[in-house]
Amino acid sequence: MAKKKMLAVMKTARAYGCELREVDVPRPGPGEALVRTLACSICGTDKHIYKWGAWAEKRIPTPLIFGHECAGEVVELGPDAGDAAVGDYVSVECHVFCNRCRQCASGLRHICRDVKIFGVDFNGCFAEYFTVPARCLWKNDPRIEPEVACLQDPFGNATFTVSSCEVSGKTVAVVGDGPIGIYAAGIARAFGARRIFGLGLVDSKLAMMKQFGADEVINVKRRDPVSEIMAATKGEGVDVSLEMTGAAPAINQAIAILRRGGKMALFGLPDGPVSMDIAEGVIFKGLTLLGINGREVFNTWEEMLPLLAEKRVDPRPVTTHKFKLADFVKAMETGLDPNVDSGKIVLAP
Amino acid sequence: MAKKKMLAVMKTARAYGCELREVDVPRPGPGEALVRTLACSICGTDKHIYKWGAWAEKRIPTPLIFGHECAGEVVELGPDAGDAAVGDYVSVECHVFCNRCRQCASGLRHICRDVKIFGVDFNGCFAEYFTVPARCLWKNDPRIEPEVACLQDPFGNATFTVSSCEVSGKTVAVVGDGPIGIYAAGIARAFGARRIFGLGLVDSKLAMMKQFGADEVINVKRRDPVSEIMAATKGEGVDVSLEMTGAAPAINQAIAILRRGGKMALFGLPDGPVSMDIAEGVIFKGLTLLGINGREVFNTWEEMLPLLAEKRVDPRPVTTHKFKLADFVKAMETGLDPNVDSGKIVLAP
Amino acid sequence: MAKKKMLAVMKTARAYGCELREVDVPRPGPGEALVRTLACSICGTDKHIYKWGAWAEKRIPTPLIFGHECAGEVVELGPDAGDAAVGDYVSVECHVFCNRCRQCASGLRHICRDVKIFGVDFNGCFAEYFTVPARCLWKNDPRIEPEVACLQDPFGNATFTVSSCEVSGKTVAVVGDGPIGIYAAGIARAFGARRIFGLGLVDSKLAMMKQFGADEVINVKRRDPVSEIMAATKGEGVDVSLEMTGAAPAINQAIAILRRGGKMALFGLPDGPVSMDIAEGVIFKGLTLLGINGREVFNTWEEMLPLLAEKRVDPRPVTTHKFKLADFVKAMETGLDPNVDSGKIVLAP
Amino acid sequence: MAKKKMLAVMKTARAYGCELREVDVPRPGPGEALVRTLACSICGTDKHIYKWGAWAEKRIPTPLIFGHECAGEVVELGPDAGDAAVGDYVSVECHVFCNRCRQCASGLRHICRDVKIFGVDFNGCFAEYFTVPARCLWKNDPRIEPEVACLQDPFGNATFTVSSCEVSGKTVAVVGDGPIGIYAAGIARAFGARRIFGLGLVDSKLAMMKQFGADEVINVKRRDPVSEIMAATKGEGVDVSLEMTGAAPAINQAIAILRRGGKMALFGLPDGPVSMDIAEGVIFKGLTLLGINGREVFNTWEEMLPLLAEKRVDPRPVTTHKFKLADFVKAMETGLDPNVDSGKIVLAP
Repeated sequence: MAKKKMLAVMKTARAYGCELREVDVPRPGPGEALVRTLACSICGTDKHIYKWGAWAEKRIPTPLIFGHECAGEVVELGPDAGDAAVGDYVSVECHVFCNRCRQCASGLRHICRDVKIFGVDFNGCFAEYFTVPARCLWKNDPRIEPEVACLQDPFGNATFTVSSCEVSGKTVAVVGDGPIGIYAAGIARAFGARRIFGLGLVDSKLAMMKQFGADEVINVKRRDPVSEIMAATKGEGVDVSLEMTGAAPAINQAIAILRRGGKMALFGLPDGPVSMDIAEGVIFKGLTLLGINGREVFNTWEEMLPLLAEKRVDPRPVTTHKFKLADFVKAMETGLDPNVDSGKIVLAP
Repeated sequence: MAKKKMLAVMKTARAYGCELREVDVPRPGPGEALVRTLACSICGTDKHIYKWGAWAEKRIPTPLIFGHECAGEVVELGPDAGDAAVGDYVSVECHVFCNRCRQCASGLRHICRDVKIFGVDFNGCFAEYFTVPARCLWKNDPRIEPEVACLQDPFGNATFTVSSCEVSGKTVAVVGDGPIGIYAAGIARAFGARRIFGLGLVDSKLAMMKQFGADEVINVKRRDPVSEIMAATKGEGVDVSLEMTGAAPAINQAIAILRRGGKMALFGLPDGPVSMDIAEGVIFKGLTLLGINGREVFNTWEEMLPLLAEKRVDPRPVTTHKFKLADFVKAMETGLDPNVDSGKIVLAP
Repeated sequence: MAKKKMLAVMKTARAYGCELREVDVPRPGPGEALVRTLACSICGTDKHIYKWGAWAEKRIPTPLIFGHECAGEVVELGPDAGDAAVGDYVSVECHVFCNRCRQCASGLRHICRDVKIFGVDFNGCFAEYFTVPARCLWKNDPRIEPEVACLQDPFGNATFTVSSCEVSGKTVAVVGDGPIGIYAAGIARAFGARRIFGLGLVDSKLAMMKQFGADEVINVKRRDPVSEIMAATKGEGVDVSLEMTGAAPAINQAIAILRRGGKMALFGLPDGPVSMDIAEGVIFKGLTLLGINGREVFNTWEEMLPLLAEKRVDPRPVTTHKFKLADFVKAMETGLDPNVDSGKIVLAP
Repeated sequence: MAKKKMLAVMKTARAYGCELREVDVPRPGPGEALVRTLACSICGTDKHIYKWGAWAEKRIPTPLIFGHECAGEVVELGPDAGDAAVGDYVSVECHVFCNRCRQCASGLRHICRDVKIFGVDFNGCFAEYFTVPARCLWKNDPRIEPEVACLQDPFGNATFTVSSCEVSGKTVAVVGDGPIGIYAAGIARAFGARRIFGLGLVDSKLAMMKQFGADEVINVKRRDPVSEIMAATKGEGVDVSLEMTGAAPAINQAIAILRRGGKMALFGLPDGPVSMDIAEGVIFKGLTLLGINGREVFNTWEEMLPLLAEKRVDPRPVTTHKFKLADFVKAMETGLDPNVDSGKIVLAP
């Protein structure tokens, strides 16, 4: 049975920062589960909520317990909670889908017309306990420890991005050396990519991409990725490029390095409109561009399972810091510190 | 047997205009056919060559007989001309493919790595006779008259664009009321689109889109296509949008009117970089964008055949003017005259 | 409000036949709707239930109100019935899907792992009223009359079969001249097939296929479809074949008439194992075979809508008989009479 | 420069066996290359030619130098031999495609309408030298030694089969423990299959499948693969099955172990018609079946390259015997000996 009171990270003021509060443990409603948090991690979205800004002002209700990357144990069920059981070791698909719209009917729950995001549109996981619709629970393989299982949200982004481009036997460029780009290099290798180029800005991150499976890495601050990749592919270009930065120059590089008939995944979120080379870049080359959001519910989770459970791709080197949930502010400030070369930050109650 | 001398439309000076000259009828080399022109038509590319400009200066060799949209009769064959035969009634696939590169091996001859364009990179069809690699000939169905058969190049663009998006049973927006947009509306109807929206700038062209099969047309100078289409689809958006203009606002409208999980074909060629809404428009909606160039060689020709031979889509109403080849300058000036509401212009020797 | 008592067609004895009984109008449970039947029609499955046999003995619970093809009006809702509303004019997707399995998550609700069939596994629509899970209701377009709307189950089979093979611009053979084969010929035409061959056993049915859109029909009792289609396609074969009979010779003909790289839909259900030419037929030709069951929930319904609402394909000529529900036994015996050339049989209370 | 005379393995009598003869080294004609054989290997097809039978009687012209799996060095070129150069280290795509038919235009050269097979329809590689159309040459990576490079024909079969089913993240059953089945297990692992089941008849071969990457192997002589795989997948079945035997019971097992919506590749060639469970097996489960023949020209060769060059899959353990070409009869008799547990047999001049 759950405790009565719990620690929670709450956004209360509509301004920079957050509060740690002791609040009532929530009760699961119809179709919901109550989960005890075992581990959680900080996403870029959480940083936007913490720092506050135009997007947060428009989207985030307050007060809000935020956070959506997590692993935990089901401790109580509301009525009609389907197949979930007390004791299940779970993670959460943060896209709460309706199962009624055309997208949900077509295997596109991740872009459900009426999607609500756990930890963004309603209370999330930065707390000792949380409730969530039971249909969004994924039962974890016990071989995956909580500090890895909580990473399945971003690792799933990377898996879905790689999977969408069918990389087996193909040459691939991963554009961006953040955590998801590094994961993507490892997944592309595990999925049989022929040759992987990693592009980024930070030598230590590029070194990690290489450790994860990139054959060659290019620091775009010092070298021109377009001419290098064209030379390395005898003027042809790569079959697939995975854009993980959202930066306009990177997006255009990701287009320029593709071969005719190539495929590109757009995952990194630009801040505003992006000026793109459509005529020579996209049309004359006959490219296919895929907008990638979230991960397939639950196909991507199925695909991730063996990668993580059998350590074919081990995401732990990307995790640079671990904190107690009570030290959330310190964890977040570490993640925001430009002088700290942080990767993923994991928290445990 | 062919004549010795022929009339040809030649680009000689690297400046505005062209010359009509009497020149030797060419002889077919190895793998080539000599074709007597029965009809030809003017493409936007021909206008760029005639008017001259940065693109032409960079790409066009002189002297050049230009023109690539045509129908004719084979009158002589060089050695090793494959299945072609004297007397064949033919049109020309203007993308001269190599059959050796990875694209040609993969069914992507239209984006062949070493493609050369008939009438752009070497002499074309604005003449009484022309030579062309025999592997680029398409044998026309005799039910299709020369003045229609010469239109298979742009009609094929429209067919390939529509076909790429698999429109049967789907809601479709055709963005652009030029000849290829009008053709596309007719082809989308013939391929079983559920509901077709036509967007454009000219009322008479929009009326023709409706005649070709659009259910509703929107003059974007007077009405907001995004709010109208969203209202007409109960807030969902269309399944498919076909962008035929290359104009930045139209491209962003074509994105905005798509439903989550929708598909967009980019066919219209922008003059320069286009500022696009990637985050909300493409990524969060999980769109697929296809760059479309030319037409499949010869899959698209197979698909066009019944449309034209059985008049399921009749392209003739789009043809507003006919001239003799000797009146080429008059024909071209008509096509360029902003005060003339011209569609396709067809010429015959 | 619904009446208290109603007429129902019930399978009571586990033997040939059925009974018409007056029973209580059922009450809708949680997530269910009570629907007043406006029209229903007889499927081959209903004939198997009526006649009884090995399949029925194994699958059918008794007593059972059978029937699953219907149109009606929602008259009452149980709790949690979602978007449904009293007064909705509806038809029923007979595959009651779980929305939890991998298939349901992937856009494959029609092959849900835990699927239950309305009118087969639990009470169906051959009655004045019926209850059904509200998530299986489809809101009909008012332009579609009840006697057509009840046909959306078999018409949807045909639509899904045609749609799965992407027939636009392709040559298609429809193998089988039963109602679903005839519908399929019309849908293939509406979806832009290039040329349609209809194969069957009954001249009057083949004449109807031609009326629906087949370009050429072949009575396989008198003519050899393989040599004829090969001759008609210059030795190449058709792009697509749609097998609607389940008969072994027809299945092998449907393979033999395909071109290399062609696609075949297997829809007709064989009684037992089928001896197939795999080596020369399927492997050397590099065919793709698709097993087709039911229809996509609700993609296929979306695709059917304009076909029926705008009468692009009018299924009414296939309906040869209409009866009152009270005359069900007479209707069924007419359908089973080998001397009556019946098509679809529609009933109304 | 090539020698004047050479040793060749010839089928002369239309009966069991073959002859070793000294014959003139052939001269390359237009578009052809003369290649010096460095290594070659024996395929099942070669065994059929050697043993003779109904298929050989119908298909094979005599006298014929047979053999098609090879690696060699270009020593002379005929006119118009394209990009080939003397000194190139090459293997041969044995499907001599026309580059003119619809299949060749669509990326389906391996099922070219007018395909001729090297070493089957005209002289092949069991000789010190051979000629071949230069467009069928593949330039080998120098990291791949001749005794491995000659295996690219069967290894390419395995690669194309695996690649056709997009196995990344999927559960896969490889049905058949012959060389191509063993390769397929390794390739499925390299392409990121989630879990691989290997089915076969020979314990030593199954052990090798495990060494190549199968997670679990089942000797179908002793165990029931259907119930075991169903149990191992919690009643769901595998996502993909690859049928490499051509035996009817194996084909039906490969169907039975698939999940609803699963995909099956048919590669193994049955001797005659196969009795298949279409209703419950294929249709109700909504399966997709792919006939697989040869390998994509040259997409599959591109995909194989990194597997072999970087030893991600090392095919050498499958090669059980090596002989000199002069000992061909001994090599073949070893391959045919039921008491010898042979795998691939490689020969060198």
